[in-house]
Amino acid sequence: MTEFVPPGTSFVELPSPFPMKRGGALRKARMAFETWGRLDATCSNAVLLLTGLSPNAHAARSEANPEPGWWEAMIGPGKPIDTERWFVVCVNTLGSCKGSTGPASTNPDTGEPYRLDFPPLSIEDGARAAAEVVRALGIEQLACVIGCSMGGMSALALLAQHPGIARAHINVSGAARALPFSIAIRSLQREAIRLDPNWNGGHYDDAHYPEAGMRIARKLGVVTYRSSLEWDGRFGRVRLDSEQRPDDPFGFEFQVESYLEGHAKRFIRQFDPNCYLYLSRSMDWFDLGECCGTDTASALASIRVERALALGVSTDILFPLQQQEEIALGLARGGADAQLAALGSPQGHDAFLVDIENFGHEIRGFLDRCR
Amino acid sequence: MTEFVPPGTSFVELPSPFPMKRGGALRKARMAFETWGRLDATCSNAVLLLTGLSPNAHAARSEANPEPGWWEAMIGPGKPIDTERWFVVCVNTLGSCKGSTGPASTNPDTGEPYRLDFPPLSIEDGARAAAEVVRALGIEQLACVIGCSMGGMSALALLAQHPGIARAHINVSGAARALPFSIAIRSLQREAIRLDPNWNGGHYDDAHYPEAGMRIARKLGVVTYRSSLEWDGRFGRVRLDSEQRPDDPFGFEFQVESYLEGHAKRFIRQFDPNCYLYLSRSMDWFDLGECCGTDTASALASIRVERALALGVSTDILFPLQQQEEIALGLARGGADAQLAALGSPQGHDAFLVDIENFGHEIRGFLDRCR
Repeated sequence: MTEFVPPGTSFVELPSPFPMKRGGALRKARMAFETWGRLDATCSNAVLLLTGLSPNAHAARSEANPEPGWWEAMIGPGKPIDTERWFVVCVNTLGSCKGSTGPASTNPDTGEPYRLDFPPLSIEDGARAAAEVVRALGIEQLACVIGCSMGGMSALALLAQHPGIARAHINVSGAARALPFSIAIRSLQREAIRLDPNWNGGHYDDAHYPEAGMRIARKLGVVTYRSSLEWDGRFGRVRLDSEQRPDDPFGFEFQVESYLEGHAKRFIRQFDPNCYLYLSRSMDWFDLGECCGTDTASALASIRVERALALGVSTDILFPLQQQEEIALGLARGGADAQLAALGSPQGHDAFLVDIENFGHEIRGFLDRCR
Repeated sequence: MTEFVPPGTSFVELPSPFPMKRGGALRKARMAFETWGRLDATCSNAVLLLTGLSPNAHAARSEANPEPGWWEAMIGPGKPIDTERWFVVCVNTLGSCKGSTGPASTNPDTGEPYRLDFPPLSIEDGARAAAEVVRALGIEQLACVIGCSMGGMSALALLAQHPGIARAHINVSGAARALPFSIAIRSLQREAIRLDPNWNGGHYDDAHYPEAGMRIARKLGVVTYRSSLEWDGRFGRVRLDSEQRPDDPFGFEFQVESYLEGHAKRFIRQFDPNCYLYLSRSMDWFDLGECCGTDTASALASIRVERALALGVSTDILFPLQQQEEIALGLARGGADAQLAALGSPQGHDAFLVDIENFGHEIRGFLDRCR
C-alpha cells in the first residue's frame, strides 16, 4: 500500500493506545501536519485548518516544499489567511493516506497494512487527533479553527469535544450533520469501489487495483462538487477532436467527459481506496447532535466561541447552503457573534477552492476582526 | 433478450426501411402505444404524450390493463388530462424495450437481437417515429403534444421536424439541448454499465447480466432525479433495523441507502442495458439548434405553435429551470402565447411524477384554454 506524504511534512505521535469512538484503539499512530508563519510569544495567533476528505496537509507552498498547496491562493504572506500575522497549522486527517495513520498504514501488531482491520473511523476521532497536534505544538487556545467541507464537520466536533480550544471558528461549506442526499451519493461511491472485483474485500495491491470502482467514485465526486450552470459556461456542448475520441461505440465524445476522465486519472492511484471508504463513511455517520447526545441545533448552541462565520454557496448540492445557515444560527444561539455569508459563486461545493475572490474577502475580513 | 410489453399495448408498423438520422435504417420496426378517450368527429381533440427514458406506453389504467400507469394521477376522466374531453395517445419511445423496436428487439436480417448492431439512435428518430403513430391514427393535427423529461426533447424535435403537427405544446421538465452537467451524469451511468464485465460489449444474457453496472446507473439516476431538501424531510438520518442490515463492513445502514437499493432492484431486470445505453446517449446528442442547423434560441423561435407552457422546478439539477425558461422564451419569440410555470416543488426532476397538485393545476388550466 502506498502512502503519499509530501516533503516538508511534520509528524506528531498520538498517545498510544489512542481509543476510537466506535470501539478499538490505534497503537503508535501519528498525525501529519504542516505549519506556516510564526507562533507569537503569547501563543495566541494560531489558526488550525482542517481539510476535506482528500487533501494532504500541504495547503500552501513552504521553504521545504515549494509546490503550490491545495489552498495556495488563500494562505501566505499578505493573503486572506495572512501568514505574517497568523501561525497556520494544517493537519492531514486521521484515516487518510497522506501521512497521518489510516487503513493503508502499517498495523504495528502485524507488520501488515491495516486494510479493513482499521477500527471504525468517526469524524470525532479525527477531531480528537487534530487536538493532539494542537497540544503538541504548545498551543492552549487557537485564535481560530477553520474547517472546509468534511473539515467543517471535524471543526464542529473539535469545538464540541474540547470547550475553549478556539476563540473563533470559520466553517467553509461544511455541515453539522450528514444529509440523506449526500449519504446516498457517498454510499454509491463506496458501492462502486466495493463492486469492483479488484477491491477484493480490501485486499488489493498495485497490480490488482480497483481502478474501475475508484474511477466511478471520483467522477461522481467531481460531478457533485460542481454545478450545472458553471459547466454550461465552461464546457457547453464542445466535442473532443476526433483523434482524441476513443475507438469505442460508447466512448467519450464531449469535452466534459474527458475533463472527468482527467480528474479521475489524477486521483485513482493517488488515494488509497480503503482510506477513501473509511473517510467517506465517517462523514455519513457524523451528526453533531448524536455526538453531543442531543439534537443538532442544541448541540450547536452548546458550543462556546466568541465569533463565527459560516460560508456557503447556493449552488452547492452536497453541503447545501441551509446547512451553513443552520451552523450560523446554532452558534449564534450559543452566544457567538455568528454570521452567515451566502455567496453567489456558481461553482457549487468546490467554490471555496476556486472562487478565492469572494471566499478570500470574507475570510480576510473575519480574521481582521479576530485580532 | 427480454422485452417488457404491458397488456393492452397497440402497435404501428413503421415504414420499412425507416432511415435513421445518423446513418443506417430499421427494417420492419414497430411502435408501441396506448390510447385513452375517444377521437372526436373532426379529429381535433388528440393529445400526444412523449415519455422520459424509461416508462412504457401505459401512462394510465385502461380496460385492457387495469394496472395503474406511470402518470395515473394525471390522466383519466376528470383528471388534469381529462380523457372525457381529450383523446390521449402515449407512445413508447423508439429504442426502448417496452414494445417499440430497440436494441433488444430481433434484427429481422439476422433473427438475433440487434444489441450494438442497432443503428445510432437520436431523439429526432424517436420524434419521427412518434409522428408515424399520429399519422397512422388518422390525426392530421394534434391539439397538444406533451413531453416529459426526455419526452420534452422529443416533443421539440417533433414540432421542429413536422411544422403544423400540433396547435399547442406542454414541455414538462424538458430541455432544448443537453447540458454538460447532465451529459456528465449520463456518461457516468453508461460507464458503470460498460465497465461491468458482464456487459461484455453488449453480449449479455439473463445468466450473465450486467447487474452491478445497472445497479449503479439506476441509483445515480434516482439520486439526480430528486433533491437534497426533499430527502432530508423524507429520510432524515433514520437507520435500518439491525436485522435489515447486511452483514458487510460497508453495508447499508441508513434508510436512504435501502430506498436506493429497492429502486435499483425493481429496475435492473426490467430495462434492457443496451436500450438504456442508446437512449441515454441520444439525450446527450440532442440540441434543437444542431437539429435545425442554427443556435438553440433561433431553433426554438422557428417553431410555430399557438400556445405553449413550459413547466419546471427550481430544485431540478438534471434539467434545471433555466432550460424550461429558455423554451418558454424561445417559443414566445416564435409567436406562441408561451408561459413558464416555475414551481416550488421540492422533489427535483421527478416532481412532475409526484407533485400532481401543482403540475396538474397548471396542465389542467392550460388544456382548458386549448379547447
